[in-house]
Amino acid sequence: MGVIVKTDYKKMLVNDCVRPYLLKARYGIEKESKRVDLFGNLAKTDHPKSISLRDDHPYIQRDFSELQMEIITPVTETLEELFNYLAAIHDVAYRSMGENEMLWPLSMPPQLPEKDEDIVIAKLKSAENVRYRQSLSHSYGRRKQMLCGVHFNFEFGDEFIQALFNAQSEIKDYQHFKTEIYLKVTRNYLHYRWFVTYFYGASPSSEKNFFEEDSLNKVVRSIRSSKFGYTNSDDVQVSYSSIQNYVSDLSLMVKRGLLSAEKEFYSPVRLRGGHHVSDLEDHGISYIELRNIDLNPFGNYGIIYEQAEFLHLFLLYLLWKDEGENCDEWVKMGDFYNDIVALEYPLEHTQFEVKAKNMIDEMEQLAAILNLTVSDTLFVNLKEMLMDPSKTLAGRLYTESEKSSQGQVATCIAKENYKKSWDMPYQLAGFTDMELSTQILMFDAIQQGIQVEILDRQEQFLKLKLKDHVEYVKNGNMTSKDNYVSTLIMENKTVTKKILHQHGFRVPKGEEFQTIEQALRSYDLFSTVPFVVKPKTTNYGLGISIFKEGANYEDYQKAITLAFKEDSSVLVEEFLKGTEYRFFVLNDKVYAVLLRIPANVKGDGKHTIQELVNQKNRDSLRGSDHRTPLERIQLGELEKLMLKGQGYQVDSIPKKDEIIFLRENSNISTGGDSIDVTDQIPDDYKKIAVDAVAALGVKICGIDLIIENTEVPADNKNAYGIIEANFNPSMYMHIYPYKGESRRLTMHIIHYLFPELLQSQSN
Amino acid sequence: MGVIVKTDYKKMLVNDCVRPYLLKARYGIEKESKRVDLFGNLAKTDHPKSISLRDDHPYIQRDFSELQMEIITPVTETLEELFNYLAAIHDVAYRSMGENEMLWPLSMPPQLPEKDEDIVIAKLKSAENVRYRQSLSHSYGRRKQMLCGVHFNFEFGDEFIQALFNAQSEIKDYQHFKTEIYLKVTRNYLHYRWFVTYFYGASPSSEKNFFEEDSLNKVVRSIRSSKFGYTNSDDVQVSYSSIQNYVSDLSLMVKRGLLSAEKEFYSPVRLRGGHHVSDLEDHGISYIELRNIDLNPFGNYGIIYEQAEFLHLFLLYLLWKDEGENCDEWVKMGDFYNDIVALEYPLEHTQFEVKAKNMIDEMEQLAAILNLTVSDTLFVNLKEMLMDPSKTLAGRLYTESEKSSQGQVATCIAKENYKKSWDMPYQLAGFTDMELSTQILMFDAIQQGIQVEILDRQEQFLKLKLKDHVEYVKNGNMTSKDNYVSTLIMENKTVTKKILHQHGFRVPKGEEFQTIEQALRSYDLFSTVPFVVKPKTTNYGLGISIFKEGANYEDYQKAITLAFKEDSSVLVEEFLKGTEYRFFVLNDKVYAVLLRIPANVKGDGKHTIQELVNQKNRDSLRGSDHRTPLERIQLGELEKLMLKGQGYQVDSIPKKDEIIFLRENSNISTGGDSIDVTDQIPDDYKKIAVDAVAALGVKICGIDLIIENTEVPADNKNAYGIIEANFNPSMYMHIYPYKGESRRLTMHIIHYLFPELLQSQSN
Repeated sequence: MGVIVKTDYKKMLVNDCVRPYLLKARYGIEKESKRVDLFGNLAKTDHPKSISLRDDHPYIQRDFSELQMEIITPVTETLEELFNYLAAIHDVAYRSMGENEMLWPLSMPPQLPEKDEDIVIAKLKSAENVRYRQSLSHSYGRRKQMLCGVHFNFEFGDEFIQALFNAQSEIKDYQHFKTEIYLKVTRNYLHYRWFVTYFYGASPSSEKNFFEEDSLNKVVRSIRSSKFGYTNSDDVQVSYSSIQNYVSDLSLMVKRGLLSAEKEFYSPVRLRGGHHVSDLEDHGISYIELRNIDLNPFGNYGIIYEQAEFLHLFLLYLLWKDEGENCDEWVKMGDFYNDIVALEYPLEHTQFEVKAKNMIDEMEQLAAILNLTVSDTLFVNLKEMLMDPSKTLAGRLYTESEKSSQGQVATCIAKENYKKSWDMPYQLAGFTDMELSTQILMFDAIQQGIQVEILDRQEQFLKLKLKDHVEYVKNGNMTSKDNYVSTLIMENKTVTKKILHQHGFRVPKGEEFQTIEQALRSYDLFSTVPFVVKPKTTNYGLGISIFKEGANYEDYQKAITLAFKEDSSVLVEEFLKGTEYRFFVLNDKVYAVLLRIPANVKGDGKHTIQELVNQKNRDSLRGSDHRTPLERIQLGELEKLMLKGQGYQVDSIPKKDEIIFLRENSNISTGGDSIDVTDQIPDDYKKIAVDAVAALGVKICGIDLIIENTEVPADNKNAYGIIEANFNPSMYMHIYPYKGESRRLTMHIIHYLFPELLQSQSN
Repeated sequence: MGVIVKTDYKKMLVNDCVRPYLLKARYGIEKESKRVDLFGNLAKTDHPKSISLRDDHPYIQRDFSELQMEIITPVTETLEELFNYLAAIHDVAYRSMGENEMLWPLSMPPQLPEKDEDIVIAKLKSAENVRYRQSLSHSYGRRKQMLCGVHFNFEFGDEFIQALFNAQSEIKDYQHFKTEIYLKVTRNYLHYRWFVTYFYGASPSSEKNFFEEDSLNKVVRSIRSSKFGYTNSDDVQVSYSSIQNYVSDLSLMVKRGLLSAEKEFYSPVRLRGGHHVSDLEDHGISYIELRNIDLNPFGNYGIIYEQAEFLHLFLLYLLWKDEGENCDEWVKMGDFYNDIVALEYPLEHTQFEVKAKNMIDEMEQLAAILNLTVSDTLFVNLKEMLMDPSKTLAGRLYTESEKSSQGQVATCIAKENYKKSWDMPYQLAGFTDMELSTQILMFDAIQQGIQVEILDRQEQFLKLKLKDHVEYVKNGNMTSKDNYVSTLIMENKTVTKKILHQHGFRVPKGEEFQTIEQALRSYDLFSTVPFVVKPKTTNYGLGISIFKEGANYEDYQKAITLAFKEDSSVLVEEFLKGTEYRFFVLNDKVYAVLLRIPANVKGDGKHTIQELVNQKNRDSLRGSDHRTPLERIQLGELEKLMLKGQGYQVDSIPKKDEIIFLRENSNISTGGDSIDVTDQIPDDYKKIAVDAVAALGVKICGIDLIIENTEVPADNKNAYGIIEANFNPSMYMHIYPYKGESRRLTMHIIHYLFPELLQSQSN
C-alpha cells in the first residue's frame, strides 16, 4: 500500500474491450452567482420565497451569502442532459426571483459594500450551517466569499473503469484500481491546470471594495484561480500520493487548526466519495470535483458545452499522459505554473505556449487514435485561443470592458440572460421539445425542490421525488392518483355516456353503430332532430358531421359513410345547443373553467383581415405545434371558405369592433382563443362537473359541458349536457389563457401529488 | 277515473313520430326447470354450492323446491341480448351443477315421488320464504308446484309510449296513459291467449304421480295452461277494467282468505310496477309479466328467439286490435276459450282455426303497414303450425313421445343440452365472440351472483355490481385496482427497465435509439455479446432479431433497419440465457407460473409430422383466433423452414418419443404449449416477481422472468433477469393449460374486486 504501481494506461486505453465505453461518464455542475438588481448592484432582498426554502433544495440553494444563488444540476450521463438541466434550473431561478433581479455573470463580484458586515450571510434554517459561515467570514473575510465559480463534478463510467480493470493484471482490487485512476488524473490535473486557466480563466480584474487595499494592481487572466483568489494558507499541504496520505494529511491540518474542518480545504480538485473525507479510505474515490472553473461570462449559464466536453477529454488525456515520478513535487509544480499563467496579462501570449501547443496536438491525436467523437470546433478553438490570447475568455472580457467598463459589460450580459428567460415565460429552457404542460410542471417541481428525472423524454415520462416519496407522471397529469379503468372509461365515449347517464347526468342521446347498414336503418330516429355523426374513438374532429336541423336521408348517408372511414364504430347522437365550457377538475374541485372561441380577429376599420391576423399572431403566446399556449391563426383554405361564407376576403377591411370568425370549430390548435371564466361560472355548474367526474371515479379530468345559459340553474331540465370527459386534459391553456386569469394547474398537480409540501410550508 | 277513455291506438301507431320507436322495448325472462340426474330422475342433491347461495342471487335461484332451478335474465333492450344472457346463465347453471346433473326440458315434471313430502322445499336462508312455500304446499300440494314454465317480462320502450302519448290528446296524464296501454294489452292478451296456447303449449301429458288420481286421462296441448295446471280457485275473480279495480279486487281476495297473499294470484298476466301490488295505484304499471308460456322442449333454454319475437309483435298487435266493450266479460271469455284450446288433442286442428288464420293475417298486415323488421320465418311457421297441428310444440313433443316415451324424449333432449354446455367448458354461451378471459370472468361473476352488464361488447368493457358495490373491468383484468401511471410504465419498456433497475432488479442492459445512425454508432457496445434488437412498443414479435453470439456489423445494421420499420424507437439489449417463465401476480401474490413451449409434436415412430400435428390439433382446447385456450399448430412456411433446419419434412416420421419443434418462439398464439409450473417454482423466485411488480406499483401483472436454473437461489448473481411486465396479462392460458393444474385466475380477480364475497361465504 502507498506504493504507486505503474500501470500502463496508454496500453489499456486502446484495448478493444475498453473502446465502446471510452466516453461513458457521469457529470454534475454546481454554479454560484450573485443576485443583482437590474442596474447591476448587489440585491438587498432575501432568497426568493417562491423557491422552496429548504436547506437541502436539490437545485437552488444559497451559498455563503443570502444573495449568492447556487444552481446545482442532478448527476447526468450525458453532457446534453447536463446542460438541459443547467438551463432549466436557471430559468426557474430567474423567474422565481421576479422581474427586478438578475444573476451577475462574472466570478468577480460587482462593487461590494464598504463594510464587510453588510454582506449578509445566508439565512439558512440550520444553525450549524450559519455558524460555519460565520467562522469562514472570520478567517477569510466576507468579500473573498463573494467570488463565484463553477464546480464540475466528474465520474468515469463504471463500465469504462471495469473494462480498464479487466485489461490489466497489476492491480487485483477493483476499488483500489479505481482510486488509483482518480489519483493519477487528479495529480495530473493539479500539475497541468494552468492549461485550463489559460483558456477559460475569466476574472481579469476586480470591482470596488473587493480587495481591502489595492493588493493586485494589474489586469490578469484569473484572479480567482490565483493566489489572490479564495485559497487556504500556504501552510496547508496535502499529499495526493495515496488515498491514505491524503486523508491523514487532511486530518492533520484540521488537528493543527490550519483548517476548521476538512471541507474548508479549497483544493482546485476535491476527491469525492461518501459523506466524510474519512469515507474515502473505506470506499475509495467515486468521483472528482474540479473547482477552478471561473464563470464563463459569455455562456448563458456560467459554462458552455464545449468547455465541459474539453474537460472530459482533458481528463481522459491526463489519465493517458505520463506523470512525474515524485507525486507531491509534481502537484506543487502545478500550483507554481498555474499562478504564473493566472497572473499573466490577458492579452499577452502565455509563457507556456509551446507546451500548450504540444498538449493540444497530443489531445487531438489521442482523440483520433481512440476514435472519439468530439465537437468539430473544439480543437480549432483551442488553437485559435492559444495563438490569439484576445480570444480566451479573460482576453475577450478584458477587451470588451475596455470599451466601457467590466461592470457595464457584465450588467449588459446579465440583462440579455434575463431577457432570454422572460421572453417566453411558459417555456422551460433545455426542455422546449417537450410538451408545454410538462415543461411547466417541471418548472414548478424544480421550484418546489422536487427532484425531476426524465424517464422517457419523447413520452413525457417523469419521475418526481421528494425525499423518499416518488411519483411518476406522464404527459403532465397522468398519475398514480387515477385508477386504470376510469381512464379506460374516459377513452370510450359510449361507456362514458352510459355511466354518466346511469348516474343521472344529462348526456346527448344517441346510438352506436358497427355497420353502415345498421346506422342507415336508424335514420328515422334522427331525421328531424339536431344531431351529430362522429367516429367513436378519434379525437381530432375528423369524420364529424353536425346537422343542426335534422338531415335528409342522402346527407345522413354521406355523414355515416364519412365517419366509418375513420373508425369501425360510429356514434350518432343528439346535438346539444349552447356554449361549450371546459372544466378542469382535480381531486373533486374545479380549478379552472375555460371558454374556447374559434379563431377570430376584431376589426378596427383600418386594417385588412390579413393584417389583423398578422397583428394577432405577433403575440408571443402564439406559435405552432403546441409549444406555445396559443397557435397562430392560419389563413388557409378552410379559413378563406369561412370568410367567403360571410362575404369577406383576406383583404377586406372589417368595421371597427366587428368580430370576424375564421373557423367554425373552437379548438386552440386551429387558432382559437382561450378565455378563463372560472370566476364567472356559477357554483351549481361546477358541482355538476365535480359530481360527474366523481361518478366516473376520476381524480384528474377535463370535462366538457354544453350550457345554454349559465344564469339558468343547473338543475333545470336540459340546462346542461355533458359532451366528453378527457383523461389527459391540456393544462397550459388554462395557465396562459388569451384572456382572463391564469390558473396554475401544474402547481395544483404538484401539491396534489406531494401534499407534504403544503404541510411543510405551513410549518 | 275508472271510465275507459276509448283511445284510437290504430291511428296513433301509424303516426310518423311513433314510427322510429315501434320496436323499442325492454325484456326479461324467468325460466324454471328441475334438476335431474343423467337418467332423467329428479335430483336428490342440494342446489349447487358453487353458485352463491344468496336468496337474492340475480341470475340463479331456487323456486318452490330445492331441485327447481330458476334462471333469471337481467332486463335487456334487445332480444339478442336477452337470449345471450339466457344462454350464458344456462351455461353457468349446467357447469355449476357438475357432471352428474342436467336440467329437465319439460314443463311437466318427470316421475314424482309417491309421497308429497318427499318433494323437498327449497332450503332458503329466509325463514319467511320457507314458510310461504310450506303454506303453498298445504293449499295446492307439492306436486302441482313442480310445474315449470317461462315468465316473459315485457315493457314498451319509454320513447315509444312517449311518442304515442304525444300523438293523442284524450288523456292528459302520462302515467295514466301508460297504465291504460298496459291494461288494454293485458285484457286482450287474456282474451286471446288461446292463440299462444295453440302454437306454443307444450305439456301434453303427465308422468307418474303428478296427478293424485288420474283426473286427466287424455293427451292435450297444455296441461299447465289449462284448469289442470297451477291455477287459483274459481272464486278468485279480479277485474282488469282499471288499476283501481284490479288492486281493490286483489286485496278483497286476500281479505276473504281466498289468497294468502297478493303474490299468490296466478294470473297468466301479472301487472308489474313497484314492490307491492298497492304501488301500482301510485306509480301505475311499468311492465307486464306473461306467465302462460310452457317450456319449449326444442329450444335449448325453454324458449326460442322466434317465440319472443312473436310475443312482442303479438303485444303490439293486441294494442292495435279493438277489444270488447265489457272488459270483465272479455277477459272471462278468454279463460273459457283458452281452456278449450289447451285441452284439445295436440294433433287435431283447433276449433278456432279460422279466427286464428285471421289473426295471423292481421298481424302480418300490421307488420307490413308499420314497416317492422321481423324474422322471415315467423309468419311462415305460424301458418304452418296452424295448418298442421303436428308442427306445434305440443304436436311435436307428442309425436316424438309416441316413438318411445315422453320421459325418454325429455332425457334425450336434456342430455344434448348438457353436452353442449360441457363440450367447450371454457366458453360462455351467448358471448363466444368476446375474449376468452372475459368470457370466463363473466362466468365466474354470474356464478358468484354478481350482476354483469356489458358496457361495450367489442371493447370487452364490463360493469360488475354486487349490491351497491360497482366495479368496471375491461379485458378481464384492467380494473380500478391498478393506478393509471403504473400501467403506462408497463406500456413503456424503457421506463419499466429503468425503474426495475433503480430498485435493484436485474434487467437486460441496453440502450434506446431514436435513429438508425445513433444505433449504428453504438455497434461496439454489442458486437461481441449476446443481444436482442427490438422495436420499443410493438408486442407481436415483429422486427425482433436475436443474436446469441454477437453479430457482425452488417447483420447488426440489418437488424436495426428492420426494427426501425416497426417503431420510431428501437431497443438494443443484452440477451439473457435461460428459460422464460410467466408469473401472474395479483395483489402481491403469485397465483400462477407458466412455462410456454414452442409448437411441437412428439413422435410415435408411426405417424408423419403432418399426422401428429393433426392429432394434436384435435384437442378441443385448440382452436383459432384466441377463442380457445390453445391455438392450432400451423404447418406454414415458417414451420416448414424450421423442420428443414432439423432435416425433416411434413411427411417425415419421427422416432418414438422424439420431440419435434415447429417454431422458434414459444407464443401460445403460434401453437405453443402452456404448462403450469406454479408448484414447481421455488418461493425465492416468486418473491422476486412479487417485489418487482410492487416496485412498479402494480396490482395485476404478468411478469416474465428468464431463469437459467430454478435450483440456483434467486439471489445468486445473474440467476434471473426480468424481461417484461404486462399490464393486461392473458388469464385463460393459466386456467386451461395444456399440461398441469388449472389456476382459476378470473375467480381470484372477482374475489380481489369483491372481497365481501369471501366474508359472506365464511359467515
